[in-house]
Amino acid sequence: MWIPLDRDSAVPLYRQIQQFLRQQIQSGALPTETRLPASRKLATSLGVNRITVSNAYAELEAEGLVYSRRGSGTFIAPPLAALPESKGDRISTSDWPLWQQELLSRTWLPAQRELDQLLESISHPDLISFSGGMGDSELFPADDFRKALQVVLRRDGTEALGYGDWAGYPPLRAKIAHVLTSQGIPTHPDHVLITSGSQQALALVAQLLLRPGDMVLVESPTYTGAVDLFRSLDVRLLGVPLDEQGMRVEQVEDALRSGRPRLIYTIPTFHNPSGTCMNGHRRRQLVALADRYNVPILEDDFVGDLRYEGRAQPALKALDPGGQVIYISTFSKMLMPGLRVGFLVASGPVYERLLACKRVTDLAASNLMQRALEAYITVGRYQAHLRRACQMYRRRRDAMLDALRRYLPAGVRHLSPQGGLFIWLQLPAKLSANELYLIAAEEGVTFAPGSLFFPAERTQPYLRLNFAMHPPDVIEEGIQRLGRAVERLMAHQESEAVSASRQKTVVV
Amino acid sequence: MWIPLDRDSAVPLYRQIQQFLRQQIQSGALPTETRLPASRKLATSLGVNRITVSNAYAELEAEGLVYSRRGSGTFIAPPLAALPESKGDRISTSDWPLWQQELLSRTWLPAQRELDQLLESISHPDLISFSGGMGDSELFPADDFRKALQVVLRRDGTEALGYGDWAGYPPLRAKIAHVLTSQGIPTHPDHVLITSGSQQALALVAQLLLRPGDMVLVESPTYTGAVDLFRSLDVRLLGVPLDEQGMRVEQVEDALRSGRPRLIYTIPTFHNPSGTCMNGHRRRQLVALADRYNVPILEDDFVGDLRYEGRAQPALKALDPGGQVIYISTFSKMLMPGLRVGFLVASGPVYERLLACKRVTDLAASNLMQRALEAYITVGRYQAHLRRACQMYRRRRDAMLDALRRYLPAGVRHLSPQGGLFIWLQLPAKLSANELYLIAAEEGVTFAPGSLFFPAERTQPYLRLNFAMHPPDVIEEGIQRLGRAVERLMAHQESEAVSASRQKTVVV
Repeated sequence: MWIPLDRDSAVPLYRQIQQFLRQQIQSGALPTETRLPASRKLATSLGVNRITVSNAYAELEAEGLVYSRRGSGTFIAPPLAALPESKGDRISTSDWPLWQQELLSRTWLPAQRELDQLLESISHPDLISFSGGMGDSELFPADDFRKALQVVLRRDGTEALGYGDWAGYPPLRAKIAHVLTSQGIPTHPDHVLITSGSQQALALVAQLLLRPGDMVLVESPTYTGAVDLFRSLDVRLLGVPLDEQGMRVEQVEDALRSGRPRLIYTIPTFHNPSGTCMNGHRRRQLVALADRYNVPILEDDFVGDLRYEGRAQPALKALDPGGQVIYISTFSKMLMPGLRVGFLVASGPVYERLLACKRVTDLAASNLMQRALEAYITVGRYQAHLRRACQMYRRRRDAMLDALRRYLPAGVRHLSPQGGLFIWLQLPAKLSANELYLIAAEEGVTFAPGSLFFPAERTQPYLRLNFAMHPPDVIEEGIQRLGRAVERLMAHQESEAVSASRQKTVVV
Repeated sequence: MWIPLDRDSAVPLYRQIQQFLRQQIQSGALPTETRLPASRKLATSLGVNRITVSNAYAELEAEGLVYSRRGSGTFIAPPLAALPESKGDRISTSDWPLWQQELLSRTWLPAQRELDQLLESISHPDLISFSGGMGDSELFPADDFRKALQVVLRRDGTEALGYGDWAGYPPLRAKIAHVLTSQGIPTHPDHVLITSGSQQALALVAQLLLRPGDMVLVESPTYTGAVDLFRSLDVRLLGVPLDEQGMRVEQVEDALRSGRPRLIYTIPTFHNPSGTCMNGHRRRQLVALADRYNVPILEDDFVGDLRYEGRAQPALKALDPGGQVIYISTFSKMLMPGLRVGFLVASGPVYERLLACKRVTDLAASNLMQRALEAYITVGRYQAHLRRACQMYRRRRDAMLDALRRYLPAGVRHLSPQGGLFIWLQLPAKLSANELYLIAAEEGVTFAPGSLFFPAERTQPYLRLNFAMHPPDVIEEGIQRLGRAVERLMAHQESEAVSASRQKTVVV
């Protein structure tokens, strides 16, 4: 099979292959049940990487145009029934039922989605992304986890495939309680609730405690997934600014008095997106204030274990006078996101209500995944994995800090985190990270623009860089590109300022 | 180690072992880091099954009293930090923060939970349970699924452990779309959203479309998990009665006119709990009514593939005039609940909003589980598994129907389902299924009492039996016990009626 490829095009090769085959299928040139060439063979004949062809086939499969039969190959699928709403011929909004049209005005779409769409629009052949929210996938312990799954399925058989305990697999809860207790957070297994990642823990707490119109006190900036969640529940956000020591707690009492929030949501350790760590004094103050004003605290400890230097601060939960703090964490960042295993720790009547929410939301977390995780942690591999990750990420953080000092123009400021995944950058006044985003994409580098993280949408001079996803040489190359992008943006702004002042002169 | 066991006690042996060891640990007789005997060895010396000892150890581990080190054995754990709220010395409600005390009055606990608690209180040594909501766990394809996981982790490596596509693994969505299309529900992969079981699909739709105080039209009785979910959202329920042909659709138009519901939730095929199947005429009527009154339909097809006889009716989604019906289904009943993989199918603007809800709720379904499921389905094993399940469950249904005719007193009526998992029983007038529950537990059999399934709580003469979980001989034994329980309840009621009439005579 011969497929014309344009190697100078901005369209990736796999897309070109996909588009060519799609056209051939839709025109009938490749009839139903035709077998496509093996990906290895086609790759050789086109002179491309095999992954390129595999990606093209996978995309076609996702479109429903081809299907694969293991051991036999990839075949043209029978045509789908004609659908009025298929991508080809989109019908107009007014053809949908009225209740669907009403949704368009009444509901909201997540901010994260905009970032995805921006990313999809970039066609740089060799893009370096600092925009992600997780660790390096190369570090995921795929092989050890595969073995743990084997052990569990051989040992527990069909029992591992049933619903299991609603609150989570008891031995896993016991293990989490032990780990937390050893870290200074006294925890009983009956107070641990396993969730589908910490995002679900967050959602359960929000669904239980908040009603439309309620106010939530958050750091400003804060985690995009929380902002999106609160917006989806029609909850108002009250942002407290940060400095290098975390949330400026001295502003919290005023907010508690005036805004009467129903919840304080905070990421005290290696904050997302700023990377800052709240100091011990502020932690104690915050817990005391919450207690005095009868407001629950939701403590999000999503990467607390990734500390590269400095002394650990006590978790807010460890300072809890009794039932005031709900603590959430996850294995997504430290191990792998695909587990979808996180947890919350809560004591008092709220625990049973959160369990009830979990049950109506999706019954229970995957029993098999919990058992495999428990087996994996038992043998001490988790601790070894954590040490390895910390060493690697510290080197990468240092490499990025070093590159930032070397390649970014004066006037760009950054915070130096003691742990976690992120470095927070501030551009010189009047430069917008959203504008920089497009120029940086042309240079071949992306980041998470600051506007994603602020409760109120507006142009922001901030951006978040993830330093954990690439080795030092790639980090250096990426930061060099970012430096070029910032310089281009500055030059552009200066020339605009000049022409604006000229115009002004003429007018005056 | 010698442990005194009372084989005549109602307390199961593993509980006795657990209680003995707990006492030894708490008294200090077994100090920290002591190694417990290997389960096989202890089992031999006590003359019990090894599973009994393993269960006792697992319970102790869940309590945090012991921990296991693979290859080395089970050890006494260091004591947990003293917790004010640990089970031993429960503190009073008034010691919790005020916001927690308020939760007690304001929020609700699921009805399902009461059933669990009832079940836990039963100490019959050889209980036969017809109360569950799923198929026989012996049928779960543990070994094939283990192989599919191996294949996926070897093939995809760390990619299988990342977040993956927010809407679900594209090849799995394509496969689901193909299966549905072949069953007469034309589906595009872009309209399939993978969820954490169908319970989550239900929750996403409810969270998006409903606000506190809204009305939902449901069958009465209906699925307990839906009743609980709607109650958790402060949504009111409007029940439409059923007969042998499913929901009595002729009553729906009045309800639509007077109640103005925001959603119609229905289980048209092998309804839970009644097992009935809505006839084709009513299906068409219902879809037409929903269209005319601008109300979305949520069609729950949780066991549609388990048909043992008769002709399949079209899904409501197949009759959808365009965007009116949201269809949900699951692999929990047909394959195994521990997957936590279900899906919804929706077209129009509502799809993207549901995807946004999914994202704020828990980001995405487990990538690894989706890939393994996709690999499992590919090789045609799913279809073979389904055929085997249908054959086995049909025999079990017939065995239960036969036993019901033989062992239950006249006056107990039942419906004969053409598929699914459940048989619905009606007791003679004035007998309460809740009262029967306690007597039946003494006889050694349980069921799901009807009150769980009705939107309004009240004493119900109905009960649901699951016929799929046990082989025919166990079913026969269980129904014999149920027959005895019903007779005891009838005799008890008659004697009460007699003494009541005597008292009446005396008083008058």
